[in-house]
Amino acid sequence: MATASPVSFDDIREAAARLNGIVHRTPVLTSRTLNALVGAEVFIKCENFQRIGAFKFRGAYNAAAQLSPKQLAKGIAAYSSGNHAQATALAARELGAGAVILMPEDAPRSKMEATAGYGAEVVTYDRYTQDRTALGQALAEDRGLALIPPYDHPHVIAGQGTAALELLEETGDLGALIVPVGGGGLIAGSATTAKTLQPAIRVIGVEPENGDDTKRSLELGERVTIPVPRTIADGQALSTPGEITFAINQRLVDAIILVSDEEIVHAMRFAFDRLKIVLEPSGATALAAVMAGIDNPPARIGIIASGGNIDTQRFTELTGSR
Amino acid sequence: MATASPVSFDDIREAAARLNGIVHRTPVLTSRTLNALVGAEVFIKCENFQRIGAFKFRGAYNAAAQLSPKQLAKGIAAYSSGNHAQATALAARELGAGAVILMPEDAPRSKMEATAGYGAEVVTYDRYTQDRTALGQALAEDRGLALIPPYDHPHVIAGQGTAALELLEETGDLGALIVPVGGGGLIAGSATTAKTLQPAIRVIGVEPENGDDTKRSLELGERVTIPVPRTIADGQALSTPGEITFAINQRLVDAIILVSDEEIVHAMRFAFDRLKIVLEPSGATALAAVMAGIDNPPARIGIIASGGNIDTQRFTELTGSR
Repeated sequence: MATASPVSFDDIREAAARLNGIVHRTPVLTSRTLNALVGAEVFIKCENFQRIGAFKFRGAYNAAAQLSPKQLAKGIAAYSSGNHAQATALAARELGAGAVILMPEDAPRSKMEATAGYGAEVVTYDRYTQDRTALGQALAEDRGLALIPPYDHPHVIAGQGTAALELLEETGDLGALIVPVGGGGLIAGSATTAKTLQPAIRVIGVEPENGDDTKRSLELGERVTIPVPRTIADGQALSTPGEITFAINQRLVDAIILVSDEEIVHAMRFAFDRLKIVLEPSGATALAAVMAGIDNPPARIGIIASGGNIDTQRFTELTGSR
Repeated sequence: MATASPVSFDDIREAAARLNGIVHRTPVLTSRTLNALVGAEVFIKCENFQRIGAFKFRGAYNAAAQLSPKQLAKGIAAYSSGNHAQATALAARELGAGAVILMPEDAPRSKMEATAGYGAEVVTYDRYTQDRTALGQALAEDRGLALIPPYDHPHVIAGQGTAALELLEETGDLGALIVPVGGGGLIAGSATTAKTLQPAIRVIGVEPENGDDTKRSLELGERVTIPVPRTIADGQALSTPGEITFAINQRLVDAIILVSDEEIVHAMRFAFDRLKIVLEPSGATALAAVMAGIDNPPARIGIIASGGNIDTQRFTELTGSR
């Protein structure tokens, strides 16, 4: 019994047209050193070079751009401690809308400043005592703002699917596509694109080993909730998959690989030393997975390097001690 | 009275054909943040993503590939404390030739290991008591090796000119091209390309303020020698311009800008934080110059980010203290 997907490949193609000239068409890097290490040709889609430093801008803009002029005049809201905050703030600014972003009061100062720098009002909360989803919804309702969720929305997922579209247009046939999994928006969009264009491709998700909520959920066949994971991959420190994203990923994702914090740091250091690119921990998990070795590696593998928002101090803390 | 140049644009086009499929066609990055800061559209040719992490591989390979089969069977030599060592070692390996590289005994262990990793024999010397040029020539003569100099050779210069060729093919008309100057090979090749394709373009070199040998030489109209400069830009710590490179640069380079170590570090940090790329000090000088502000900036500026070979520890030492 087939159910119509909440996100079709047509939605992703429309998103790509909407984002054209707004997002960066990020480069695809290759490295002979990496290829020799992995024993396959690896194509790295550099979303760390995306505007705001991560793929998140694709989804946020695609969602915001579909709001009515009346809604845009009222404004946009989002809750995020990370890249979705900056993504939504920038999307709002590009569309001439106001934005209110709910961020934990202990979020990195640089991220709060960047978000405010895009013209958004930053509202803080205590993440140990307050529920951000409830707060965000209350804030949006009180002020009449449109809430753009970080992943569990068809327009957000369709926007994220445009990165894989650009990648596959550039590489042609791949044996596997490896994508980081947090709430599941990037991989849901990526898998929709990949399985449409190349039905034989394997779509493999990567989670930090302490944040394996999607792996467990896929194994059990229903969404499970785990304790808030402790991992350096803060963009993937979620307790449970999204509802819409999980439904898509259940159909389209072939496997989930887990990587340790140590493997992530190793990949970040390799990216710096050999690829000369900066990856934040979550942005390095797909690289970490391919470097750790995947089962039956195909000859040509695509990976999404999803983000690069890390400051030099934190980078040094993580990579400093060999 | 016109003199035929030792390097013509045809030489560069032939080099590009020779390098096709051997070198990376490196991406050209743009950043709206940088554009807003500079007040112009800036196109960054990312030679830090080149094989061995710097543009040097272009020239070394172009020179090595023009040696006779007999000479390749005897082997290649080079002297370098930095990127030209790895570049020559890799060029030799690609051509199936042996290589002997003369490196100072206190060169970074990582660079010596990388050079040896490409299969070259590394011979060390004491840079405080021994003359590397004399040693290199003696080594080459004793063993019958072909010496590939780091910059002062028409084939090396022609190879370096292919980076600007790729850049201008991608960007179209630029008002200025900004290029780091060490021995002058990269800018001599770049200027030959740029002034042929776009005669109205301004070609601007960048030196570290303590290593202004080319600026002084251009002002005086002849090559001057300065004390070995103290600068973090080790790839540009030279005392005097090359003979062939200077003759070309005297005709084609419009101006030289000086940047301080502080401006270089600021550019390296900006590259990490906002562009998400890793630049070594010499690789960041063109970015530093454009960020510091050039006179009468045109609407569209190309810069060459020439290399990214710096380890995390040194990067932290340089950028750590704000």
